[in-house]
Amino acid sequence: MEVYLDNSATTRCFDDVAALMTQIMCGDYGNPSSLHLKGVQAETYIRYAKETIAKTLKVNEKEIYFTSGGTESDNIALIGGALANHRMGRRLITTAIEHPGILQAMKHLEEQGFHVTYLPVDQNGIIRLEDLRKAMTRDTILVSIMHTNNEIGSLQPIEEAGALIKKMNPNTLFHVDAVQGFGKFRIYPKKMNIDMLSGSGHKIHGPKGVGFLYIHENVKVKPIIFGGGQQNGMRSGTENVPGIAGLAKAAEMIYVNLEEEVNKLYSLKQKFIDGVTKIENVSINGLTGKNSAPHVVSVSVRGIRSEVLLHALEDKGIYVSAGSACAARKPQPSATLKAIGVEKDLMESTIRFSFSVFTTADEIDYTLQAMYDIIPMLRKYTRH
Amino acid sequence: MEVYLDNSATTRCFDDVAALMTQIMCGDYGNPSSLHLKGVQAETYIRYAKETIAKTLKVNEKEIYFTSGGTESDNIALIGGALANHRMGRRLITTAIEHPGILQAMKHLEEQGFHVTYLPVDQNGIIRLEDLRKAMTRDTILVSIMHTNNEIGSLQPIEEAGALIKKMNPNTLFHVDAVQGFGKFRIYPKKMNIDMLSGSGHKIHGPKGVGFLYIHENVKVKPIIFGGGQQNGMRSGTENVPGIAGLAKAAEMIYVNLEEEVNKLYSLKQKFIDGVTKIENVSINGLTGKNSAPHVVSVSVRGIRSEVLLHALEDKGIYVSAGSACAARKPQPSATLKAIGVEKDLMESTIRFSFSVFTTADEIDYTLQAMYDIIPMLRKYTRH
Repeated sequence: MEVYLDNSATTRCFDDVAALMTQIMCGDYGNPSSLHLKGVQAETYIRYAKETIAKTLKVNEKEIYFTSGGTESDNIALIGGALANHRMGRRLITTAIEHPGILQAMKHLEEQGFHVTYLPVDQNGIIRLEDLRKAMTRDTILVSIMHTNNEIGSLQPIEEAGALIKKMNPNTLFHVDAVQGFGKFRIYPKKMNIDMLSGSGHKIHGPKGVGFLYIHENVKVKPIIFGGGQQNGMRSGTENVPGIAGLAKAAEMIYVNLEEEVNKLYSLKQKFIDGVTKIENVSINGLTGKNSAPHVVSVSVRGIRSEVLLHALEDKGIYVSAGSACAARKPQPSATLKAIGVEKDLMESTIRFSFSVFTTADEIDYTLQAMYDIIPMLRKYTRH
Repeated sequence: MEVYLDNSATTRCFDDVAALMTQIMCGDYGNPSSLHLKGVQAETYIRYAKETIAKTLKVNEKEIYFTSGGTESDNIALIGGALANHRMGRRLITTAIEHPGILQAMKHLEEQGFHVTYLPVDQNGIIRLEDLRKAMTRDTILVSIMHTNNEIGSLQPIEEAGALIKKMNPNTLFHVDAVQGFGKFRIYPKKMNIDMLSGSGHKIHGPKGVGFLYIHENVKVKPIIFGGGQQNGMRSGTENVPGIAGLAKAAEMIYVNLEEEVNKLYSLKQKFIDGVTKIENVSINGLTGKNSAPHVVSVSVRGIRSEVLLHALEDKGIYVSAGSACAARKPQPSATLKAIGVEKDLMESTIRFSFSVFTTADEIDYTLQAMYDIIPMLRKYTRH
């Protein structure tokens, strides 16, 4: 049995997405900038994709830009947003548990003379609004807070943060990295005072190499890639038409039955947590109910190193993650686990299970049984 | 009959490329950063792709980086190269007929305080080495020259330019935009003193949304996108595994019979030129023999506006370009045609025909016949 439980790292593409992309790559392969019929066809796919993403966010389609993925979206929002607005100030705020796409872009901006405040989080991985309030200054030009954490599934108080930011300084831009939240929640930037929002294709059963960035029409952002002026000059380069159409198709498929699919995920998650916590000295990091992500469970298994457990599960065909896959195989301590105060021993014994619409109750049962078999055995070995 | 002669804008994907991508998207869909089997599988595709591209260029596979396309590759080379080396000087050199991915990145660098020299070209669209020699100064840190022009197919003296640059200043970086040349010529950076070279997937029957950048191992380049540190930190973000594998597959398929395919293109090009120049007041821009690109023909048809002819051909199922598709539908005068001294009237009456391995002699005959029918008729109308 093959059980893929690493869906926060990446997901299996929907068959319909791959079929659509093949149709575009081999049939409707025109360049959207071309004036002839094949160019117009390609442009139509992009327009439809913009409308689709815009509809899920209840924003205007001209506010949607396509990028090469979540990391590029984050970089445009942060670097492009900071550079376009630096005359109003050089202060930025984010959290201690962001994705590297945010943290490293912030580090780059610090090298450019910007000052970044990193909000701490509580033991559940959630920021305190009071900390945000204290960090906000007159020259804070941008706040970036992730919607759903990729390692422990914590959810941030995005709507409250948005209201607070705009109340304190209407000029401060609010960016949300929703790479893990898009496709799991209904997120409405206009209602939540979000000026920019990043999403990714391959986390929602769409293709890798494509993402989107919502930018409120009044917000000024400088491009970071220059060229033929595609996408209103915000993102030059021939549009990745199959990727863009594939991303939109995946979003469409995910959002049509969102509540049903998400409820299914929550019940799989609960079933898994109920089962796994029966094992001695096993703990869950972060919240576990409907105030957490439906698809992520972070499990610390005292006494067993993450990689050992990962490979033991792999031998049974079960694929999970030691921390997050987003840090390019670098075996470094997880910033998120550190920030929520997990003790060092447990940080190195933490495994992430992440589910998708393809995950079944049978797979959960199989995985639990594997853990019941493996963990006592591994503990016996490591005890000596 | 549908005749696609806009292959410099973009190409039809090979069926085998799309099939491989589907296999990866729906089967081997792991994240290369994941430690389990599915991650290792994904990593294997990337390693094979690096080896494949490296082999065609006779460089080391660790010198190959994957990007979201030619424009991003150009931007990393220019912006990343300039920022990493600005302590040695702030002067850059390029040509007047580069792709917007180069020209706009240069414009951005000018705004950052760099000084750019734009080399003129002769009536065939070719730089003079003497101009390059004169432009080189002690503080010239980077020269960027395109291999094959996208509008008229002119070829630059890359090897001679590389030798000249390195003779005058071994520290000056030499970048080559080979987006139109890769897949048509055997290009060997080490032999040609090229430090960085850009290529794109969708110009060689590979997917859109993916490209590569060769960077000589001793060359310092700063990343422009920051995040999880993928690709040695040069290009963060989950790798576009299907796109990367698709690009490599296309390169492999193109290069296996390169000389044969290219000779076929040259003979189709000659057949087309022989036929089209039989029409009164029709001229070809640039060179036409084997010292020009095998796949591009720029044709000026006096008295008929490009867009009128483009749409008349479109009515017969023939898809061509008015100038270049890379400028995102902006009806602006072509910098290349201006630079080679085409008179203004003819600039607005110029059509680009570009061929591919899918182009047949029958399609050329059909296109010529269409032009024999259309042009006298259109001229009759516009004469009144």
